[in-house]
Amino acid sequence: MTRILPPGTRTIRLIVAYDGTAYAGWQIQPAEPTIQGILTEVASRIMDHPVKVLGASRTDAGVHARHQVAAFDTPSPRPAPIIARGLNAMLPPDIRIVLAEDARPGFHPRFDAVEKTYRYRLFTGAELSPFDIRYATHIRGRVDVSAMERAAAHLEGTHDFASFRDSQCSARTTVRSISHSSFQHLSDGFLEYIITGNRFLHHMVRIIVGTLLWVGRGKLDADGITELFARKDRRFAGPTAPAKGLFLEHIVLKEDDHA
Amino acid sequence: MTRILPPGTRTIRLIVAYDGTAYAGWQIQPAEPTIQGILTEVASRIMDHPVKVLGASRTDAGVHARHQVAAFDTPSPRPAPIIARGLNAMLPPDIRIVLAEDARPGFHPRFDAVEKTYRYRLFTGAELSPFDIRYATHIRGRVDVSAMERAAAHLEGTHDFASFRDSQCSARTTVRSISHSSFQHLSDGFLEYIITGNRFLHHMVRIIVGTLLWVGRGKLDADGITELFARKDRRFAGPTAPAKGLFLEHIVLKEDDHA
Repeated sequence: MTRILPPGTRTIRLIVAYDGTAYAGWQIQPAEPTIQGILTEVASRIMDHPVKVLGASRTDAGVHARHQVAAFDTPSPRPAPIIARGLNAMLPPDIRIVLAEDARPGFHPRFDAVEKTYRYRLFTGAELSPFDIRYATHIRGRVDVSAMERAAAHLEGTHDFASFRDSQCSARTTVRSISHSSFQHLSDGFLEYIITGNRFLHHMVRIIVGTLLWVGRGKLDADGITELFARKDRRFAGPTAPAKGLFLEHIVLKEDDHA
Repeated sequence: MTRILPPGTRTIRLIVAYDGTAYAGWQIQPAEPTIQGILTEVASRIMDHPVKVLGASRTDAGVHARHQVAAFDTPSPRPAPIIARGLNAMLPPDIRIVLAEDARPGFHPRFDAVEKTYRYRLFTGAELSPFDIRYATHIRGRVDVSAMERAAAHLEGTHDFASFRDSQCSARTTVRSISHSSFQHLSDGFLEYIITGNRFLHHMVRIIVGTLLWVGRGKLDADGITELFARKDRRFAGPTAPAKGLFLEHIVLKEDDHA
């Protein structure tokens, strides 16, 4: 999708990393601090004109990003690296511009994203380190990780994820394609769940993680995941896992998006 | 040093990890939250008697610990692991008991510590990740790391560290023995300074880091460190580096401290 822009208007693409702890999510809101709200305010100030910042993923309150893609339009000829430096000088340290570059004019981060990867960090050890409390969910009690791994594999492919979306979700279609869904064992009791797909429904990753933890605790068979696709009912899936364990890890864009 | 205890009194040794960001340091203070203050309050509540918590290192406001050693006395026969669990259930998540065990009755963490290791995390890349802002100091501009490495080596041995202590420091002697002082290169632009010694003066590690950064920026020769030992004057050393990069990493106790 290409937005129609006035002649001479550039589209600047941003890769943004943020610690979501202090924010009410990505999407701009009137009374609460949000990533999009702060980026809009700071970009408007440094560009000297009102700016609208678009994002690829509307991360929830408390969710982190290592690689969010954003964009805004400007008639300014200022080089992209100078814009990045200006933004970082004024942004709070928990929001960083990793890269700014010229994109195809009219580039839209959401509609031009072809693949997103999320990572969910779980800690299964005895006591979560004070340095990880904002960045992982502590799972107390034993979980059967190999059952969770078998269940995770069932999510790969094209399925109807209607059971794995929040009641607030307004997406018209619920069929999504997942190219990768697996666990990675890390040292010191950390376990990461990594999922890559074309698009995601509201709360989808967190509901999947909550459901995989049900499998780990024996409340659901590993094969029970496939039944949930047929059920198409949120009430049969597990609880929504906490936001703080979730990271937007990477976004792949269409190949023709460069300026 | 052994404190004289009433018969039947045990001494419980704690290994404590904490994120110092939210605290006015280790030492108990009347109006501000401190690690010692919160440990004292929580331990008194779970032990059902007033408890005095002693610590090995009086870390400053904002300084972190992966391995602080603390101790308190109790007539209770409650097993140490149960005490650890009880403390962790009531402590905030940014303070964790890593281990509780019986020590020699009268054990004193400060006087029985024979060696302490501190780690200081520096970031020399372009933009510090949002996930590291509480745990590293961002060094802007180029620094000559090999000069800093040569300077760090000069700190090893027994020296008079009078130039490397805060004006608030009340220690009677300023001669200290440093068994290890070096830099470690990490991936992604991180550089860690590691120092091990018998005892440390007030702000000593942070003043050393500030002085090593002077060397890195060419304000002081690597060999200038040895002159600073002779000067015995705080005004000739570098600035005190920020607290947030500093971690109390490990403490070695006398061998006879186990119960």
